[in-house]
Order: sequence, then C-alpha cells, then structure tokens
Amino acid sequence: MTRDELEAALRKIGAERYHNLHPFHKLLHGGELNKAQVQAWALNRFCYQAAVPRKDAALMGRTTDRELRREWIHRIDDHDGNGVDEEGGIERWLGLTTGLGLDRDMVISTEKALPATRFAVEAYVEFVQKGTIVEAVASSLTELFAPQIHEERISGMLENYDFIDESVMKYFRRRLTQAPRDANFALEYVLENANTPALQQGALNALTFKCNVLWTQLDALYFAYYDPGLIPPGAFRPVDG
Amino acid sequence: MTRDELEAALRKIGAERYHNLHPFHKLLHGGELNKAQVQAWALNRFCYQAAVPRKDAALMGRTTDRELRREWIHRIDDHDGNGVDEEGGIERWLGLTTGLGLDRDMVISTEKALPATRFAVEAYVEFVQKGTIVEAVASSLTELFAPQIHEERISGMLENYDFIDESVMKYFRRRLTQAPRDANFALEYVLENANTPALQQGALNALTFKCNVLWTQLDALYFAYYDPGLIPPGAFRPVDG
Repeated sequence: MTRDELEAALRKIGAERYHNLHPFHKLLHGGELNKAQVQAWALNRFCYQAAVPRKDAALMGRTTDRELRREWIHRIDDHDGNGVDEEGGIERWLGLTTGLGLDRDMVISTEKALPATRFAVEAYVEFVQKGTIVEAVASSLTELFAPQIHEERISGMLENYDFIDESVMKYFRRRLTQAPRDANFALEYVLENANTPALQQGALNALTFKCNVLWTQLDALYFAYYDPGLIPPGAFRPVDG
Repeated sequence: MTRDELEAALRKIGAERYHNLHPFHKLLHGGELNKAQVQAWALNRFCYQAAVPRKDAALMGRTTDRELRREWIHRIDDHDGNGVDEEGGIERWLGLTTGLGLDRDMVISTEKALPATRFAVEAYVEFVQKGTIVEAVASSLTELFAPQIHEERISGMLENYDFIDESVMKYFRRRLTQAPRDANFALEYVLENANTPALQQGALNALTFKCNVLWTQLDALYFAYYDPGLIPPGAFRPVDG
C-alpha cells in the first residue's frame, strides 16, 4: 500500500467501526438516558481513562526511539496532570463523576464497574505491552475520530440533561485540542514506519482491535443498564435512576 | 477463617455468581434459542475451551511444586488429547460446532467470536499468568459447580433441540467425570495452601473473578444474539437463524 492507501484504509476502519456508530452513544447524546444510566457510563468509562497512562508508559518502556518517547510523554502528563497547575484528564473525569453525584473513592476503586469494561480495558493495556511499536501507536488512532464525538457529546449532553452543566464537561473541552495533536503525530508515525505489508496489516488490525475495545464497552453498558437491563452480580446499581 | 469457613465462603460465591444463574443459560437449556443462537454460543465458547490448556500450562510454568505439576498436567491431556486414542476436549467441542453446521476452520480461527468473549478469555489466561499459584488454582474452582450445569445442559439440549443429538454432546458427558476429580483436587489444594488471611482473600477474589469471566461471556451472547440482538461489527452473523 502507498501512504495514501494506508491512510484511507485506516480511516475506513474508523468510518465503519468507531463507537460513535453505537446505539448507546446516540442514546447518551440524544438525552434518552436517565441520570443513573449516565452515571453508569461515566464510572465505567473511568476505568478506561485511568488505564491510559499505563498503556502510554508501557509503550514508552518498550521503544528505544528517544524522539518517540519525547513526544509520547506529554500524553501521560495530559492524563495524570502534575497536581499543581494542571489537574490532568483523569482528575477532569472525576469532576464529571462527582458532578453526577458518584462517590469519588467508589469510582477510583473501579470495583463497581462492569467486568466486561475491565476485561476490555486491560486487553488494551496488554495489547500495547505485547504488540509491535507500530501496532501500539496505531491502536491510539481512534483519536483521529474523537473530536467529532466530543463535539456531539458536549452539545448533546449540555442540551439534553438538566444534571449536566459546563463545569463537568471540562474533560471533553480539553480533548478537543489535545486529541488532534496526538492523532496527527501518531498517524504520521504509522504512515512512516508501517513500511512493509506485514507492518501495514498489523497497523490496520491494531486499529480494528482498538475499535472493538471501545465498542465492547458500550455493548456492556447498553446490555446492563438500558436493554434488557441485566446488571451482573456486584456491578453498580442505580439508586436514583 | 478455618478450612470449613473458607470452603463455605468459596461455595457461597458459586451459589451467587456461577453462570448457571444467567438468563442465557436458562434460554439455552430450556429450548428457547434458535439454531443460529446456539451456533453463536458454541463458537464463542470455543474460544474459552481453546484457551484452557494455555492457562494450565501457564500455571505449571510458574510453580516449583513438582507434585502440583504432576497432578495438573492431566488437565492439558484432557483438553488437547493425543490425537491417537484420545481426541481431547477441544476436539469434542469441535464435534459440537461441526454438528451444529459451523465451518471448522472458522471456529478454530475465533475471528467471528465476539470481542467481549476474547477479552474475557484472555483476561483469565493473564490472571493465571500473573496471580499467585493459590489464586491460579482457586480460579479453576468454578468446576465445583460445573457437573450440575452439564447435567442440565445434556438433558435440556437433547430434549429441546431437534438439531442436537447424543453424538455432539460428548464433551459434556466426559466432563461429568473429569470436572469433579479436578475440582476436588483444586479445592483441597486451596484449603491447604491458603493459610493466611491475604491468601484466603486472594482465593475468594480469584473465584469471583472467574465467575465474572464466565458471566460476561453470556452477557455478550445475550446482548448480541438474543436481546436486543446488536451484533458487533465483524462478529458471527446467523445465516440460518
């Protein structure tokens, strides 16, 4: 594949498999969920947010390419913050869950998250720990498709839910600028370094895998909290939904 | 906890969380599924069957206890067979999927399995690779509860589905004798070796984790193939359901 063909193939995966196509997202943005269902989404999604710096550190721990590490480290800064002048994405997500009325320690513990969420998230961390560096970078390329979903989410959730206000949407506002920078770097890296058929196929498979990680999380939320609403033993149960 | 208290606590986890309580199992045994839904169950469950020898080998690869390895190795023999006078559990499961009209190579590839199935199964393998040996052994204790489910499954499926006959139920017939032997050894090992509060809690957590692994697989099947029936991109689609 040429560079352009590889980029087109990567974008096609997003067009067909990114989780903006999932019915749970349409419900979330369209105001079709009650507060408990939005709580369930936020506390499950926290597992993913909290795992992101681990997968980024795993990637950095496996590459001898100093330039790649120097670029990649800002992702960890973005998510973890420094606790002084930058709270970081995880803290902003906790602002959302707290704003939704969820106990901070319960959310951080991830004990009430769906097992399916944890399995999917840890599969992502494992993937980055074990695949090639090109695959690890390619698995981050869902961010190419993220800005649109964040836009939809910010406007849809502010408009449709009286328990959501601007203060709890800080995470998504910030990602509107962070995600494109990250995605552009990662795309360029993959197009440059996936220079054999095997590496190109690996990059495509990695992006498909990552779309599955995101999609599966919404499947589990839809199943447990929307329809048919079968909450697994031990998982979060709505108290005010 | 005393030995008896620990055993009671382990059995309580099974009574509350084993997947015989899951509505998908009631549907499966009760004849409420169509052939395509049973196919989906069988091809997804193949992922789990195929992974079992890997987790058993991982356990053996981590213990210095020769007696434990000498006992544990027969589990790998049971699943892999020797291709001469013993076909093994994986081959017997392929007898089920082939009997259901599924292409053997498609099943073996696991490409059409639900991502949630693969994430749960690989989480189990990872758990055994990373936990303590007591946790790894304790995670096998779902077999304490398996004979009853196998009995229900054999009689329910033979009675309720005209596309199921005795020849494809060989896997479950064999497990009726294999599972109790394995479970009794593992239970004795855990009761003997989980001799600190931390190890006892680890054993209980491991069994809860394993119940989640099994439960999550049925959640995903129910969601994708029964209600609401949202099949993720790329997963098996019924052709004759």
